[in-house]
Amino acid sequence: MSDANSVMQTNSTTRDWSAQAYRRFERERSRPAAELLSRVPARALRRAVDLGCGPGNSTALIAERFPGAEIIGLDSSPDMLTAARSRLPRVTFRQGDIVDFDDPAADLVFANAAMHWVPNHIAVMRRIAERLPPLGCLAVQMPDNENEPTHALMREIAAGPRFRVKLADAAAARQPIGAFADYDDALSPFCDEVDIWRTTYVHCLAGSDAIVAWVESAGLRPFLSPLDADERAEYLALYREGVARAYPPRAGGGALLPFPRLFIVATRREKD
Amino acid sequence: MSDANSVMQTNSTTRDWSAQAYRRFERERSRPAAELLSRVPARALRRAVDLGCGPGNSTALIAERFPGAEIIGLDSSPDMLTAARSRLPRVTFRQGDIVDFDDPAADLVFANAAMHWVPNHIAVMRRIAERLPPLGCLAVQMPDNENEPTHALMREIAAGPRFRVKLADAAAARQPIGAFADYDDALSPFCDEVDIWRTTYVHCLAGSDAIVAWVESAGLRPFLSPLDADERAEYLALYREGVARAYPPRAGGGALLPFPRLFIVATRREKD
Repeated sequence: MSDANSVMQTNSTTRDWSAQAYRRFERERSRPAAELLSRVPARALRRAVDLGCGPGNSTALIAERFPGAEIIGLDSSPDMLTAARSRLPRVTFRQGDIVDFDDPAADLVFANAAMHWVPNHIAVMRRIAERLPPLGCLAVQMPDNENEPTHALMREIAAGPRFRVKLADAAAARQPIGAFADYDDALSPFCDEVDIWRTTYVHCLAGSDAIVAWVESAGLRPFLSPLDADERAEYLALYREGVARAYPPRAGGGALLPFPRLFIVATRREKD
Repeated sequence: MSDANSVMQTNSTTRDWSAQAYRRFERERSRPAAELLSRVPARALRRAVDLGCGPGNSTALIAERFPGAEIIGLDSSPDMLTAARSRLPRVTFRQGDIVDFDDPAADLVFANAAMHWVPNHIAVMRRIAERLPPLGCLAVQMPDNENEPTHALMREIAAGPRFRVKLADAAAARQPIGAFADYDDALSPFCDEVDIWRTTYVHCLAGSDAIVAWVESAGLRPFLSPLDADERAEYLALYREGVARAYPPRAGGGALLPFPRLFIVATRREKD
């Protein structure tokens, strides 16, 4: 579920790659989850559930912020859960799908970079908000980059005559992100406060190939997996070309990748 | 210099207006400055300068975060400085223009919602970054809403036959915000780390009239001040109509105002 941030690099001509930079990028990788968590109101929690917890990065942040709460991580992938359990032995990790989640005792439901894979995620968020206990909180962060050149290009190449048949369903793997009002409409009937914001982070990568590497293990997967080896090479060659055009090298070297993400923190009304 | 956030209201049909809500909006008003400050790297500072400090709201946050530093507030308005001095008697406040600022002893230069009034602000930021001491930091936040319906509409009405002559220069009062790459290009020659992000906050207001009230004391000022009373009423009537169309009332009442802001935190290279 986590984004493929591990390819983030500095431009070696003007910037220094070092252990210090590596630690900085560690912080960068956890930044959206940390910023989401920082907007969850301060109060004593009984139970916090991390939906789509992956290897437990966001779960660790939640456990640190709310040391008195019972923490539960939920993910559909056994591999992710194994990694999470070995990282956080004192946290409960369970296998399950977000769409089936229903735990009225959870007073924080946290979903970092997970909800955009859930069909009809706005209806799912609405149901979760409705079932929260009074003053309980739903906190969601989703990549909102479907209209960035990186992602428009994936669909554009897939729609061409060469790939049209095999990739007919590729673009549908990911759920479209709604407008601000869609989330406010769904959540405000149950919540006094619906805090919505959208942040575009500007990542400085080594060049356009680093941008391709960034999306290869995330958004590009549904476009590559239906293809055989030759087709995949052909698709990737077209994709590399397009990305190089859309993200030209900068004067000082490197390329900037703007990456928008949508954040929602909804707090359940105290009394209905 | 501060944005006109004081009209922010909740929708009275579904949400409660109360002292608690007021305190929440106090937090909302200081949120961009607080988020900018939170990205300034932790280190002991000698001197922090708050450019365009206004009545000292952002200065107070800086003083709280860096209690060991000498804090200086700079603003061009004597009224703002009087308010700031009475709020923070232990801080030094000076009258001056940002464009003339030059203090090589300042290791934090902070400009919250101020730099967009400075002509050629990118060149000014570049000069400030160049003059920072090693590991010194330039932190800037600017409203980036010129292309939002609220602001496009101001220019559209001003360009009509009725106002074209009197408002020929109104749109030029504010400086255009550059692209991400413009800021990275200007600052990365001197800075190992240039952290750029853009956040759109989604404000829930009572309705489209509250949106007009919001911009009236900020972005709308240069469009209203050249007009006489009749023209002003006529301009405002057209503007109210346009805003009501662009921000229709929502199902639960109220209107959402998306408000984008650009953030830049640049850290001076340790050695040239």
